[in-house]
Amino acid sequence: MRILITSGGTSEKIDDVRAITNHSSGKLGKAIAESFAKEDAVIDMITTRHAMKPEGKTIHPYYIESTADLERTLKKLMSENTYDAVIHSMAVSDFTPESSVTLEDLEAAVATQPKDLPSALVTIANERTEKKISSDTDHLVVVLKKTPKIISLIKKLQPQTILVGFKLLVDVPMIELLNVAKESLKKNQADFILANDLAEIRGEKHHGYLINKQHKVKEAHTKTEIAELIKHEVMELEEAK
Amino acid sequence: MRILITSGGTSEKIDDVRAITNHSSGKLGKAIAESFAKEDAVIDMITTRHAMKPEGKTIHPYYIESTADLERTLKKLMSENTYDAVIHSMAVSDFTPESSVTLEDLEAAVATQPKDLPSALVTIANERTEKKISSDTDHLVVVLKKTPKIISLIKKLQPQTILVGFKLLVDVPMIELLNVAKESLKKNQADFILANDLAEIRGEKHHGYLINKQHKVKEAHTKTEIAELIKHEVMELEEAK
Repeated sequence: MRILITSGGTSEKIDDVRAITNHSSGKLGKAIAESFAKEDAVIDMITTRHAMKPEGKTIHPYYIESTADLERTLKKLMSENTYDAVIHSMAVSDFTPESSVTLEDLEAAVATQPKDLPSALVTIANERTEKKISSDTDHLVVVLKKTPKIISLIKKLQPQTILVGFKLLVDVPMIELLNVAKESLKKNQADFILANDLAEIRGEKHHGYLINKQHKVKEAHTKTEIAELIKHEVMELEEAK
Repeated sequence: MRILITSGGTSEKIDDVRAITNHSSGKLGKAIAESFAKEDAVIDMITTRHAMKPEGKTIHPYYIESTADLERTLKKLMSENTYDAVIHSMAVSDFTPESSVTLEDLEAAVATQPKDLPSALVTIANERTEKKISSDTDHLVVVLKKTPKIISLIKKLQPQTILVGFKLLVDVPMIELLNVAKESLKKNQADFILANDLAEIRGEKHHGYLINKQHKVKEAHTKTEIAELIKHEVMELEEAK
């Protein structure tokens, strides 16, 4: 069995010293990797230097920082290897910095009524010569653009792989969480979505719902339970194939 | 001898899952702490969970995340203890997120010609109910406001302490680096500024200039050399007092 796991959180550069980061300790990804390693699975793990490291001789880490790095590494690994399952637990930035300007720059740009304000701001930012944005302004404006959705690539690259996606929301009703997970199942052709709420994660305690294509929901309450549940369901589906 | 060291990089929340972080491994702060620990100094260390941890029985860590946390912790420690020196090597965010809005929100706000655009955007952001910003927009606009300059507090709290500040620039001529360091010496009543350039830092290799009030410059080429140089100069100034 060969498994691809993504874990940790991406970080998107604003300039040479600042970045926008997605919080993720990598603990859940570590638990999932170690759970599959117990079954002697070969595990390729795309992760970050800050994330917790899983232990296991069959676990091979690939370090990345940004969403663009993740895309590149995922495509490369998925063109070189065939995976029985891809477990995409990484917290990926939905947005990446496109331009950073001062408030004065923004106001001046707006006054010219550009058709495309984001592009006008990119031009202004590119005209600035310093590599680190000066702190001589009261307000800094960072415009972010949407990143490509990495999860939607996975089934396009390997339609036969078992895809486990993740949905993290913050302090929402259970019904909303499950609805968002169902949408993600469909949109990304996922086989499972692990839906979880940041308000219900604290240390090893981690409440999650694993929902499958038939919308059957199983519940887990700790990172270890989530890891074991994912492994169990993936292996069962693999055997049923 | 009692020393206060700040080390690592602050991180400023955008929402519950995203933050703006300042890159800093904490390696230099670790080297400085361990260098003073060899002299049996008692070291209070304000640092982050991500930063490298120094080893030494006399080193006491205080963990923080944001610039506001740093300010609170620094004021508390400096009101409780008298420090022979404060070595402020932490990479502190110059800006912290004030509001996050969609591009559509920004354009609508600008159209009303508010006197104070940042405040208008804060109002819009506060009216949004979700705790995690939705990704259903092509562009996200994050407005950041300036944080208070922590370094300028230190001599106000303890005028007799020896203050070592840091200036990190990116790929600038040496003369500019030293000029910026001289300005910082004066503005913050610092006794020393360690001026360094990100383009000249790689692993243990770390080129830095330590400049004192008399504008005497000493050079170092590794993190260990910088740590030893700072310790030597601080102890010499302490003895001369």
